[in-house]
Amino acid sequence: MPYVNIKITDEGVTSEQKKELIKGVTDLLQTVLGKNPKTTVVVIDEIDTGNWGIEGESVTERRKRGG
Amino acid sequence: MPYVNIKITDEGVTSEQKKELIKGVTDLLQTVLGKNPKTTVVVIDEIDTGNWGIEGESVTERRKRGG
Amino acid sequence: MPYVNIKITDEGVTSEQKKELIKGVTDLLQTVLGKNPKTTVVVIDEIDTGNWGIEGESVTERRKRGG
Amino acid sequence: MPYVNIKITDEGVTSEQKKELIKGVTDLLQTVLGKNPKTTVVVIDEIDTGNWGIEGESVTERRKRGG
Amino acid sequence: MPYVNIKITDEGVTSEQKKELIKGVTDLLQTVLGKNPKTTVVVIDEIDTGNWGIEGESVTERRKRGG
Amino acid sequence: MPYVNIKITDEGVTSEQKKELIKGVTDLLQTVLGKNPKTTVVVIDEIDTGNWGIEGESVTERRKRGG
Repeated sequence: MPYVNIKITDEGVTSEQKKELIKGVTDLLQTVLGKNPKTTVVVIDEIDTGNWGIEGESVTERRKRGG
Repeated sequence: MPYVNIKITDEGVTSEQKKELIKGVTDLLQTVLGKNPKTTVVVIDEIDTGNWGIEGESVTERRKRGG
Repeated sequence: MPYVNIKITDEGVTSEQKKELIKGVTDLLQTVLGKNPKTTVVVIDEIDTGNWGIEGESVTERRKRGG
Repeated sequence: MPYVNIKITDEGVTSEQKKELIKGVTDLLQTVLGKNPKTTVVVIDEIDTGNWGIEGESVTERRKRGG
Repeated sequence: MPYVNIKITDEGVTSEQKKELIKGVTDLLQTVLGKNPKTTVVVIDEIDTGNWGIEGESVTERRKRGG
Repeated sequence: MPYVNIKITDEGVTSEQKKELIKGVTDLLQTVLGKNPKTTVVVIDEIDTGNWGIEGESVTERRKRGG
């Protein structure tokens, strides 16, 4: 019954990678807590780099500076 | 003053259906808890089926298998 | 498969009222969108009035003023 | 290490305004709580006006009525 | 820079198990997406069983019925 | 109408500091985006240090090491 929300920047994540994240998190919750995968929900949010801030600036700005 | 977030898969939900969800949740909070509709906020997130996981796989995969 | 998060102030909500919220939201999603109740998840967060702000002040302050 | 999520309606917010929000929130957390900006994360979600409800109706409907 | 929120019912999760969840999710994001663990944030919310609904009823009710 | 969620570790934040956060964020949204304070909602979540992970470990562990 767990609910997991993964927020990452929107920078070319593939369907294959998303599958691995979903599978990996679901397995982890089963291994560590015995949670039934049937009702484990995972939602991935891909956030535009202009909408993600760290250290007081957007990731778009950081990428421009090579960060 | 309640805040309600509804997350559903992005599969052709109409404006009319969204209105019904917003109205329905707002009414429910007024009926059950006496909350003033004036400050009840409802946010609907429509999530790409590739970004929604259940049972360790994405909804995109399930739909392909007829699930 | 929907996930619904309801945030309300922590002001004496009873178990009975929580049941009504859970039931009401689950029914609404089935009626409006045909969502299967089996995988509809509802999470209620009760927030301390000192941690909830509206109009630039906490609900604790408002309540003191009779608001 | 704080995490801040700002949800606003998707109505033409500029990159410049997003930068100001990110900078402003990060500064606020440093000033008030002494939080290190290096690990302060800010995520801005711009929500379609049809998906945002207030007073039991969507913002799209309100805007049509001039609200 | 990813942010991960894990919501589970509050049913005796140990510190050790939380450490495993935090470590496991952080490793997963590094393995699958190459994300730097230094800025991967994981927040675990333990939700009272009376505040968690599934299939239209609270987990408290389910547990009473042996579910 | 904005909704802002601030997540911080639960380490002795005072009522006064919470008021400053609520006021500061509400003012920021008015200054930058012209948002009406009347419907700006701010919710502060204070997270137990054992439930907050960074760099693959909990903040509780970091604090023990003097981090």
